[in-house]
Amino acid sequence: MIIDAHSHVHDPVGSHLRLLDDAGVDRTVLFATRPHPERATDLNSLRHEMSALDRAVGGHDNSLDGYRAAWREQDDALAAHPERFIGFGSVPLGLPEEQIAAMIDQEVVGRRLVGIGELTPSPGQASRLDPVLKAAHDHGGLPVVVHGFAPTTAEDLHTLSILAGRYPSVPLIVSQLGGLNWMTAVELARDTPNMYVELSTAHLVFAVKLAIRELPERTLFGSDTPYGYPLLARATVERVTSPGEVRDLVLGGTMGRLLGIL
Amino acid sequence: MIIDAHSHVHDPVGSHLRLLDDAGVDRTVLFATRPHPERATDLNSLRHEMSALDRAVGGHDNSLDGYRAAWREQDDALAAHPERFIGFGSVPLGLPEEQIAAMIDQEVVGRRLVGIGELTPSPGQASRLDPVLKAAHDHGGLPVVVHGFAPTTAEDLHTLSILAGRYPSVPLIVSQLGGLNWMTAVELARDTPNMYVELSTAHLVFAVKLAIRELPERTLFGSDTPYGYPLLARATVERVTSPGEVRDLVLGGTMGRLLGIL
Repeated sequence: MIIDAHSHVHDPVGSHLRLLDDAGVDRTVLFATRPHPERATDLNSLRHEMSALDRAVGGHDNSLDGYRAAWREQDDALAAHPERFIGFGSVPLGLPEEQIAAMIDQEVVGRRLVGIGELTPSPGQASRLDPVLKAAHDHGGLPVVVHGFAPTTAEDLHTLSILAGRYPSVPLIVSQLGGLNWMTAVELARDTPNMYVELSTAHLVFAVKLAIRELPERTLFGSDTPYGYPLLARATVERVTSPGEVRDLVLGGTMGRLLGIL
Repeated sequence: MIIDAHSHVHDPVGSHLRLLDDAGVDRTVLFATRPHPERATDLNSLRHEMSALDRAVGGHDNSLDGYRAAWREQDDALAAHPERFIGFGSVPLGLPEEQIAAMIDQEVVGRRLVGIGELTPSPGQASRLDPVLKAAHDHGGLPVVVHGFAPTTAEDLHTLSILAGRYPSVPLIVSQLGGLNWMTAVELARDTPNMYVELSTAHLVFAVKLAIRELPERTLFGSDTPYGYPLLARATVERVTSPGEVRDLVLGGTMGRLLGIL
């Protein structure tokens, strides 16, 4: 089974399904989203959508209203296509710690979502994920996905590896191969058995190649649709691997095992 | 004719030709290079190669010996495959201004190279390109290619647009779509008729799509081999364009016109 480990609710949902079909992808992890860059038709409209993204990935927009609207969109997509979409739930990291566990009970487990993410702490604030990982542990080791590209910093990646060490039952997935800090992400994951890297929007082909070589069982194919496309992300993995067990693990085997669906 | 607007001398050269063949690319612009990341087989050897890159793109390694070794490699590749490789020449930007013109006479025009690049000013130092653009103008408007990803800054892109305005006969090509500053690069190019953007290693598919939409006649397909692969770079362009005139311009028509080979 080919599983895209990273995508966001796409407007319209039908065009997301076509992107998956074009790439021969069976299922995709689906995160909620506030910005919709796929709606942009020119630079001005994109700047408008991206300003929402900048607030989100900077951890500055934690209004529950914004989250709830995004969750409704996600619920609709999941209900319409349960055979294609695998729902993960996000939580506002700006909440007091004690409310985070309640929010995960209610909005992740309560909505029958199977993982947590994509989480986007403010730069330098990755330690705020501690109560999330604790809740993930308390729910039997839910996978947790953290945004890895800028503004996430190399220091944040170090913090994440320490948190992962504290909750070894929780698979901690660093998205976008850690962005420009991809070598740090791979080295930290090499030394942290429950840390995984997801490959979307990696801009260097040899970064993808070496990540898979160093972490054959903990590297996940992902597109970050609509920021990347499944077809191109899959072609990148296939360009740097040979047919066989490792490629199969990267393209879906490992994610399927983490989710218990293989 | 399909022309890759950005690649570096690859070790071995034969594997570069296979990458071009796999992607159906007829010819590629070829820059000299000091680091050879394609040689790396694991993270440690890559860190060694990348430290050379960091010095080069930071503008800190301007020893002529390093340049001369890279130029010899490039001359060998150009002599062996003149039907595939289009040679551009680099110059050390750390030289005094008056020596830069002499160096371009001798090492670019004197070696029958048809453009200048890839140039990598230190961050914030793009104004050092003024004597290069002046020489390019004096030689009839040689195209000049400037590294666009980090450590090049948004301020550097602004400086480049001012320099381009000063030498309107010189096509100024910003590589890697300006990296994380891609929106700035596209907006500046929109207002600067002799400024072009090259698409290699762009990490967002809609950045490629919107760049082509805003600048259909000044957007160039490029792979930045070995940092990217021609097949994936071409697939990205084809994913966001329809068959027709604009796609043909991006994939080679515009570069061919700039070089007078179409």
